[in-house]
Amino acid sequence: MADPIITLTTDFGTASPFVASIKGIILGINANARIVDLTHEIPPFNLRHVSFFLAEALPCFPPHTIHVVVVDPEVGTQRSVLCVHVAHQRLLVPDNGCWSLLAACHPTQPVKVVKVSEPRFHRANVSPTFHGRDIFAPVAGYLSLGINQAELGPAITQWRKLPWPVAGRVADGVRGEIIFVDHFGNLISNISPKCLAEAGDRPLRVTIADFPVPRKVRAYAEAKKGDVVSLFSSSGLLEVAVVQGNASKHLNLNVGAPMLVEWGERRSTAPLPASSAMLPSS
Amino acid sequence: MADPIITLTTDFGTASPFVASIKGIILGINANARIVDLTHEIPPFNLRHVSFFLAEALPCFPPHTIHVVVVDPEVGTQRSVLCVHVAHQRLLVPDNGCWSLLAACHPTQPVKVVKVSEPRFHRANVSPTFHGRDIFAPVAGYLSLGINQAELGPAITQWRKLPWPVAGRVADGVRGEIIFVDHFGNLISNISPKCLAEAGDRPLRVTIADFPVPRKVRAYAEAKKGDVVSLFSSSGLLEVAVVQGNASKHLNLNVGAPMLVEWGERRSTAPLPASSAMLPSS
Amino acid sequence: MADPIITLTTDFGTASPFVASIKGIILGINANARIVDLTHEIPPFNLRHVSFFLAEALPCFPPHTIHVVVVDPEVGTQRSVLCVHVAHQRLLVPDNGCWSLLAACHPTQPVKVVKVSEPRFHRANVSPTFHGRDIFAPVAGYLSLGINQAELGPAITQWRKLPWPVAGRVADGVRGEIIFVDHFGNLISNISPKCLAEAGDRPLRVTIADFPVPRKVRAYAEAKKGDVVSLFSSSGLLEVAVVQGNASKHLNLNVGAPMLVEWGERRSTAPLPASSAMLPSS
Repeated sequence: MADPIITLTTDFGTASPFVASIKGIILGINANARIVDLTHEIPPFNLRHVSFFLAEALPCFPPHTIHVVVVDPEVGTQRSVLCVHVAHQRLLVPDNGCWSLLAACHPTQPVKVVKVSEPRFHRANVSPTFHGRDIFAPVAGYLSLGINQAELGPAITQWRKLPWPVAGRVADGVRGEIIFVDHFGNLISNISPKCLAEAGDRPLRVTIADFPVPRKVRAYAEAKKGDVVSLFSSSGLLEVAVVQGNASKHLNLNVGAPMLVEWGERRSTAPLPASSAMLPSS
Repeated sequence: MADPIITLTTDFGTASPFVASIKGIILGINANARIVDLTHEIPPFNLRHVSFFLAEALPCFPPHTIHVVVVDPEVGTQRSVLCVHVAHQRLLVPDNGCWSLLAACHPTQPVKVVKVSEPRFHRANVSPTFHGRDIFAPVAGYLSLGINQAELGPAITQWRKLPWPVAGRVADGVRGEIIFVDHFGNLISNISPKCLAEAGDRPLRVTIADFPVPRKVRAYAEAKKGDVVSLFSSSGLLEVAVVQGNASKHLNLNVGAPMLVEWGERRSTAPLPASSAMLPSS
Repeated sequence: MADPIITLTTDFGTASPFVASIKGIILGINANARIVDLTHEIPPFNLRHVSFFLAEALPCFPPHTIHVVVVDPEVGTQRSVLCVHVAHQRLLVPDNGCWSLLAACHPTQPVKVVKVSEPRFHRANVSPTFHGRDIFAPVAGYLSLGINQAELGPAITQWRKLPWPVAGRVADGVRGEIIFVDHFGNLISNISPKCLAEAGDRPLRVTIADFPVPRKVRAYAEAKKGDVVSLFSSSGLLEVAVVQGNASKHLNLNVGAPMLVEWGERRSTAPLPASSAMLPSS
């Protein structure tokens, strides 16, 4: 049988000793655990960023994989640590809604949540500033040894949810906003093909902030280097990209920038809201 | 028998969910695969950078290691995905010449190339923007399970090559250029000891751009902190370094900067070309 | 039995091929070795940074774990490579004092040091600029195969130590300085609870550089976003933080900034020394 996998997702960077400490504690409890780094470069305290990341990446993993997620601005307070079964994955997360989007993407799959409260699976002295090392890491180690989720603490039915901006209908169009900017500067919106079903075969006009995107393509390289294009990203959401360039830098836009897709004959005359007004940074 | 190793080399960064998705898909196909990160910090779309990286690092690995390389500005077009046996290693690469330098460094070793086209080893729905997740990752997983390279698609004998600038002779000297800048800012040229064989025992004078490098050493610490020196790097190529400093920042030079090595009695009076004219960024 | 673990700690970054080369060499000697990245983002040549990192992280690992540490400004000179048993861990390090702080934190545990000099465990051609690949990596591979430390070379009793600034008593207080800045910009000092024992129950007044820190908390989230606070970090040292912010950027302070903790009734009138005068960067 394969050695158990434990993935790590944090906002710790790697120049500080935090991630290394977590790895040591896990391996001290289960020397056979195989630790897989997902990322340590979540922008500090950014719950929306980690939520998008998890919703995209975790469904790719084999069922029952253990995922340790430590983006935790409230460490040391009364916020709970949760063990969550969702989308056939097992997550250890702070109760801050970082898994809301993942759950929302898999609405028909059962969710089971346990509050991680049983101290015999924690380190002897729990620091109020580093639960990653003192709670998440040892609990992950014990889970990988076969401890049942139910031993970690009581099942609960209430937890915190992270609200997400939802794309909405306007006359002959859909209005959404940018919810993620990837490593290449691609601006990914909350507009899915389902939002655009009513357009049928009519051509789509895409506007981001006050910039009309000249062309819609299927793959980046259908246009030439430097062109601004819209396309459906690998996550199935409408994005704006600069071919072999960086749309976020080129257009000076970021998370929260408004996006409008229209299929009527006349371009809307309603101005888009200022991008800074749309989404408070989390 | 040891679990099979799959290495990853990308320009994806880790803050975006791309690398994590690839890891999940591989582990879903072969739970025993051991994934080894080589780098996810190749500068976006930079084919020369990844080529140099692969030529340096891959020969260190045990024979038949599987290497997944996704630096792929043409994703979604007709460019092929290749499975390449070269230098005793197995590479999955876009057909963009990223392995040309590796092959050129091992001219006597056999090369076998297959076009990865058999869809039963791909994911069911292949996104036109993320072949890393939908083609490279599952194919790597199946290769690690023992699938034969020949099952992936037809053998081919034509593929794309990436041209590299070659150092050339001038009167009593060699003229080359910087082809890689490493993490410490060391400026690595395309001038090897073989290029300099004719110099014999005569002292060498090294000029980079219009800066005469005052001293040649064998190891960085032979000179004192802050000194500008030339030496043969661990890759066997002539480099310019600042001891415990950053030569690229100190001299404000980068890939493409011209380098001249002379062994005659009189210094050449021919000016070096402007560094910016030498090598278009890839 | 679990496959042997080898951890890596370097200042190499990952965009250059150095780390990948080290991984390849290790796996070529022991295909069963499990390589665990601790960090490759130590600031170049920064011995104090790596020392603090090792002192924090290594005690979390199971006994006898093999740790390869390559922060090595003197590569290619007569400085030795050491194999050190300390704090129940096994380290391969350049002899530059990078493990002094780890040893000082575990004063009662035995230390055994061997000079790594036996060339049959090195690569055939040792580059004077890359001992990580040519000495550290193969020696780690052989250690993981069960080679005894004593076979690597002679035991020694003299090695280099890295001096650290020590907090000192002043009238009704303790004067220390910042010794590490973490990924979140938290300013960590060399002042431990033991230094403050004499204060008893009296309230503490913390000053960093010339900034009086208004509040002491137990966990970051006890204050509100943006507040400047002091607290004991997860390493047990007094730190200054900005809640969900970056104290180093906010206060424009870094390693070497002076810190004063007072418990007398009157605030000291002695000015703090300029922060730049305290600690030469290593």
